[in-house]
Amino acid sequence: MRSPAAICFEIHRPLAIEEVQVAPPGHGEALVEIVASGLCHTDLTALDGVNATSVYPLIPGHEGAGRVVEVGEGVYDLNPGDHVIPLYGPECRNCRMCMSGRTNLCWTIKPTRDRGVMPDGTSRFSIGSQPVHHFMGTSTLSRYTVVPEIALAKIRKDAPLDKVCLFGCGVTTGVGAALAEIREGDAVAVFGLGGIGINVVQGARLAGAGRIIGIDVTDGKSGMARSYGMTDFVNASREGDKVVQAVRDLTNGGVDVAFECTGIVPVMRQAFDCCQPAWGTAVLLGVEPPGAEMGFPPVGVRYGRTIRGSYFGGVKGRSGLGKLIDSYMDGRLDLERQITHCLTLDEVNRGFDLMRAGTSVRSVVHFE
Amino acid sequence: MRSPAAICFEIHRPLAIEEVQVAPPGHGEALVEIVASGLCHTDLTALDGVNATSVYPLIPGHEGAGRVVEVGEGVYDLNPGDHVIPLYGPECRNCRMCMSGRTNLCWTIKPTRDRGVMPDGTSRFSIGSQPVHHFMGTSTLSRYTVVPEIALAKIRKDAPLDKVCLFGCGVTTGVGAALAEIREGDAVAVFGLGGIGINVVQGARLAGAGRIIGIDVTDGKSGMARSYGMTDFVNASREGDKVVQAVRDLTNGGVDVAFECTGIVPVMRQAFDCCQPAWGTAVLLGVEPPGAEMGFPPVGVRYGRTIRGSYFGGVKGRSGLGKLIDSYMDGRLDLERQITHCLTLDEVNRGFDLMRAGTSVRSVVHFE
Repeated sequence: MRSPAAICFEIHRPLAIEEVQVAPPGHGEALVEIVASGLCHTDLTALDGVNATSVYPLIPGHEGAGRVVEVGEGVYDLNPGDHVIPLYGPECRNCRMCMSGRTNLCWTIKPTRDRGVMPDGTSRFSIGSQPVHHFMGTSTLSRYTVVPEIALAKIRKDAPLDKVCLFGCGVTTGVGAALAEIREGDAVAVFGLGGIGINVVQGARLAGAGRIIGIDVTDGKSGMARSYGMTDFVNASREGDKVVQAVRDLTNGGVDVAFECTGIVPVMRQAFDCCQPAWGTAVLLGVEPPGAEMGFPPVGVRYGRTIRGSYFGGVKGRSGLGKLIDSYMDGRLDLERQITHCLTLDEVNRGFDLMRAGTSVRSVVHFE
Repeated sequence: MRSPAAICFEIHRPLAIEEVQVAPPGHGEALVEIVASGLCHTDLTALDGVNATSVYPLIPGHEGAGRVVEVGEGVYDLNPGDHVIPLYGPECRNCRMCMSGRTNLCWTIKPTRDRGVMPDGTSRFSIGSQPVHHFMGTSTLSRYTVVPEIALAKIRKDAPLDKVCLFGCGVTTGVGAALAEIREGDAVAVFGLGGIGINVVQGARLAGAGRIIGIDVTDGKSGMARSYGMTDFVNASREGDKVVQAVRDLTNGGVDVAFECTGIVPVMRQAFDCCQPAWGTAVLLGVEPPGAEMGFPPVGVRYGRTIRGSYFGGVKGRSGLGKLIDSYMDGRLDLERQITHCLTLDEVNRGFDLMRAGTSVRSVVHFE
């Protein structure tokens, strides 16, 4: 089958929009027709060559939604016509991690996924005789993609695919982390009001946070963040060294939970420092530069702070996405306002330009 | 009233054993006759001048047990004859921290405690006209000491004071942290098998840990640790760079909980690194050198590790010590085996020499 796709042949080059050949789904795999795909910062790391699991050429995209077209042998829970969200973090339900009850991670197919191929070690994409690699096991910037069944969340059919594609990454990461960590009445800080941060903000509101303090380097994003529930805004550029003190002053000594959504190591430390000293939790969501480390004074945790993180919001993709999508369908979560740009596949490079410039919150590529 | 006491007039000098004058208890305070006091590493930091809350001259000691002799005005819950354990961390039951339900810390009298005086800003100890300072609000190396009521845990009278004094610090810190963090069947690592570490080991056994791996730089402490429940021993000197791998190899990829009981920053990192990547928790108990920081890769927490700490084992002193003492009285916790040396007050310097040499686990000074 032939499919239009965005292809990264090499780093620091615009994506090429070309037709690729898509092989039929193998054992345990499904062929998915992507309806829409959000653009996310992790795609940019592949384009910029700072993503360790990128094998070129590759098809980026990991925030998509679509319909199952065909299933391979050994696929039991999916049928053609099912609506699905591809998952970069699968849920096999059989491994030690899935059975542990302590994590949403499943590394069953991680070794092959990180080499840009399907579990059998080969790619389903090609141009002529040249294989084109998968990215994050999803490659949702192809109209048709092949994904293992354990990495496909089946969702309700009345959910609009061009919106709920955002549950494939950003919304789930932000909302899920907020719901996992926040108790009713908590004071919360959110560092970085981009695609993850604003979803932490709306997750915090859903969790019943009493105060939601957003921190960003420009005022530009504060309006949207307020619309999602932010109660206070701190401009980090204006406050300079006094960011932590500004947050503490707003919260009688520190927040109950601080979320770091920038990936900038000194900001991670600010998130730690602005936590309530006796029980505050710093939750690290942002992706640091390769090899970077965060430092902190151990006495800060001995007295009661906790440092935690979150991967995909702590949500198990196949078991947990349905509930979040229900929250959206019930009107308790918003997706529309954060979709600032809708693009065709041909305009995908413009989407990444907007992301680099910081002028978009979420761009969504529509295939239909 | 006159009382024999161990006095630190200046750092790097042996303690002087002299008589001090003890003033009557003030409002909300009690005069306590100390029966026995364990020697703990934090006392040594005062003797060595690396404890930020030491004001000289001072009377060290914070792991004591005794009897109430006299109470000041405004003391409601204590009477002469009551058996008590002085607490360096009080529990006022009225402040924001005590009421939070999220911490065992109470900082109600911290500002004065850290200046070596009682809440009214003065000391109860003196020699002639020279005031002698309190240390950690407890100063249990004086036969008589004055302690605020909110920093005295009343305990059952049949508990032997020359043993349960250890609940004033080391045993509670280790056992409490283990009980707070470990689930039945967990694999656990304990870095440093000193006074805290062996109590983490016995707490781990009490919590039902499946595997308890002790790590130390010498084999010398492994016998006692095994008697407390350690199942595997790793000699960190012999393993060198391979300590983390050795622990991982024993546990199918990492422990569920790692306890750091040395205060050495690179060991803290080993504790982090040997945790199960998707859900392991590193619990920092050891006290680092002033100003030291621990570094770690944020991706390690994003994927699921947690960094936490513990102060006094997470136990509220007045509310929580009774249950731990019951565990000792019921035979589920041991104190006797870890008391390697019993000393008179005159021999107190020998106790600290043994501690520096690493040849004692716990020395207890007996006043009777």
